[in-house]
Amino acid sequence: MFLTRNLQGLRALRVSRFSTSTRLASAAAAATATSRMQPMDCSEIKITKADKLKPMPELNTLQFGKEFTDHMLIMKWNKDNGWNKPEIVPFGNLSMHPASSVFHYSFECFEGMKAYKDANGVPRLFRPIRNAERMLNTGRRISLPDFDPNQLVEGIKKFVDLESRWVPQERGYSLYIRPTFIGTDSALGVHDVGNAMLFVIASPVGPYYKSGFKAVKLCCSENIVRAWPGGSGHYKLGGNYAPSVVPAREAGKKGFAQILWLYGEEDYVTEVGTMNCFTVWINKNGEKEIITAPLDGMILPGVTRASVLDIARERLAPQGWKITEGKYSMKDVAQAANEGRLLEVFGSGTAALVSPVKAIQYRGKEFSIPLPAGKEAGPITEQISNWILDIQYGKEPNHPWSVPVRN
Amino acid sequence: MFLTRNLQGLRALRVSRFSTSTRLASAAAAATATSRMQPMDCSEIKITKADKLKPMPELNTLQFGKEFTDHMLIMKWNKDNGWNKPEIVPFGNLSMHPASSVFHYSFECFEGMKAYKDANGVPRLFRPIRNAERMLNTGRRISLPDFDPNQLVEGIKKFVDLESRWVPQERGYSLYIRPTFIGTDSALGVHDVGNAMLFVIASPVGPYYKSGFKAVKLCCSENIVRAWPGGSGHYKLGGNYAPSVVPAREAGKKGFAQILWLYGEEDYVTEVGTMNCFTVWINKNGEKEIITAPLDGMILPGVTRASVLDIARERLAPQGWKITEGKYSMKDVAQAANEGRLLEVFGSGTAALVSPVKAIQYRGKEFSIPLPAGKEAGPITEQISNWILDIQYGKEPNHPWSVPVRN
Repeated sequence: MFLTRNLQGLRALRVSRFSTSTRLASAAAAATATSRMQPMDCSEIKITKADKLKPMPELNTLQFGKEFTDHMLIMKWNKDNGWNKPEIVPFGNLSMHPASSVFHYSFECFEGMKAYKDANGVPRLFRPIRNAERMLNTGRRISLPDFDPNQLVEGIKKFVDLESRWVPQERGYSLYIRPTFIGTDSALGVHDVGNAMLFVIASPVGPYYKSGFKAVKLCCSENIVRAWPGGSGHYKLGGNYAPSVVPAREAGKKGFAQILWLYGEEDYVTEVGTMNCFTVWINKNGEKEIITAPLDGMILPGVTRASVLDIARERLAPQGWKITEGKYSMKDVAQAANEGRLLEVFGSGTAALVSPVKAIQYRGKEFSIPLPAGKEAGPITEQISNWILDIQYGKEPNHPWSVPVRN
Repeated sequence: MFLTRNLQGLRALRVSRFSTSTRLASAAAAATATSRMQPMDCSEIKITKADKLKPMPELNTLQFGKEFTDHMLIMKWNKDNGWNKPEIVPFGNLSMHPASSVFHYSFECFEGMKAYKDANGVPRLFRPIRNAERMLNTGRRISLPDFDPNQLVEGIKKFVDLESRWVPQERGYSLYIRPTFIGTDSALGVHDVGNAMLFVIASPVGPYYKSGFKAVKLCCSENIVRAWPGGSGHYKLGGNYAPSVVPAREAGKKGFAQILWLYGEEDYVTEVGTMNCFTVWINKNGEKEIITAPLDGMILPGVTRASVLDIARERLAPQGWKITEGKYSMKDVAQAANEGRLLEVFGSGTAALVSPVKAIQYRGKEFSIPLPAGKEAGPITEQISNWILDIQYGKEPNHPWSVPVRN
């Protein structure tokens, strides 16, 4: 039996080793005989189908996250019994006690992932275990209960399989999947989570860029700091997002699509908007380099970020590219731009996959990033995007990152 | 007409000047003739009474925030029409779209305030405009809509008046009031709030300390940083609270009631748990001093904090006490303890009013704070508590901080 609460603690476990951890076994042994905590178990899901299915929207009318599928996956937990039996129910409103801790103290975290339909019409997830492990890890940071991330993936596969008709076939289109994990205690007072709900909803989405890439302008953060050492910026907590909206609106008024979040006296580059950030340049040593900020607690550990790094190490390093996770500053980027060494900048994330940047405003000056004539993305950005898209849509046969929802 | 959205911006307005601001007039003038944004207006509230009132709980059984009154106040807003007519409805669950932005991105903030019954049986609020102004200010930081804070106070007065029977008469007992302000857009994507709800619920509460004060032990934060320059620690955002629970649990396991949140290389004292922190000492210059961290963006601007400062300036400064809002470090506190200059430390907040501290663990060493023989609070802590309680319960006649809910 998979036992949970005993494992929680301030120090995050290395979740990638989760399923084989010997710590699990000892936690199970430590549990008393009276403990009847049920683990999350998606081997069986109770399904209540919607009476009437919704009409399918026209693909060209899709707006991100506005229309939802016919059902949702719901898993509830309480501290006395553990996880209830998962249910798939018709999509609809949640009935919430007004004192629910999610409304007051932000006991909430989420994931963003997508299902892509392959040539055989089978929906495929992209590295779903990474999202499930990250949700476990984020949840632990705010006292949400443990679960086996493999079980969450199992639940999502079954849910997406049921909703197959909502996964568009066309390249660029996908079903956006939103696992959400919230505290539902109905008492005021800031304390450990005793009741929780993990629900999964899904929304069909079109390509982030309707007609090919569209490079954007960024402005650097000035007064607002997104993350800080000892803080929570590396967890996918709801609390990291609401404070970004007003600065983004102010940037938008000045014509910038996103904010490039800097940190510290050195103006280290951390993230862009809600994406990780990659810079492609000839570095100060004259090497061709693709660099992104390190996982030092100041950035979200993006699944797309990891995939860009992995594929670049596999396919671009042999071509002489140096692939670096390391600190670099906006001063470095500005200097590279001034010296003609700056080649490409792009954001990476689940929604857009990659998002090319054409200019960055920094300390009152705009630094341009070159784009090939008539194009909106540089060759590295485009190449990486195509490689990953091929994997996501199952065009690269048997790639381990692409997981069909049924066998 | 009170116009709103135009006023929002990254720079917080001086909300205390809100009602007389000339900026309001110009914002109103700038609004187009087609704008039909309704302001929050609590001059009339639609009331739907509960069919059956709940039995009153025994006072000695009350637990903080677990039982709620018969009704709740609900005010909804949308970007096209502004504020709907406020309603008081029977207390009950909220029906929420699963994509509501409050679940995903923490568009949420709250206030904590109390109603106290005076000798005439009239419930009284304590400086309620301060809470309303702070909610406005916090909401603006995360794109929630503007409102006239006087109208929120008006709504709360009417709500508490309706719920009068829930306000206990006994000293130490009160009705805890929880205004909560959330984003309710039902679309994924991180963007400006277009739909919101402000609701107010209330819960009868007993004294924080059932039998007089109980001094607590604190431990200093080590790896976790609550707030940071450029961050959101000075706003009453839900997102500031969930990340505090796991560190507090770890501290609790070691026998500490709360965490004393330090900041920076100097280990500046900021807050304690979810309270502001006051230190009473003979400072390095040999002066009797009451000191608390300044409003520099790193601490919550507590209403109780302001009241402690105000009353200390009025009544203790003439006795030779220096009252200081200024940076001081845990190193300073430790040195004062070592030199016998440390007199008292207490937290301040709405729930406990003041919470005396008897020891602080810092860098592996425990520093004791002297308590009078047989007592659990020092004389300054107790004196300030009594002064404020007298005002809260209307024992000090016509004090402007104490606002009866009806005339």
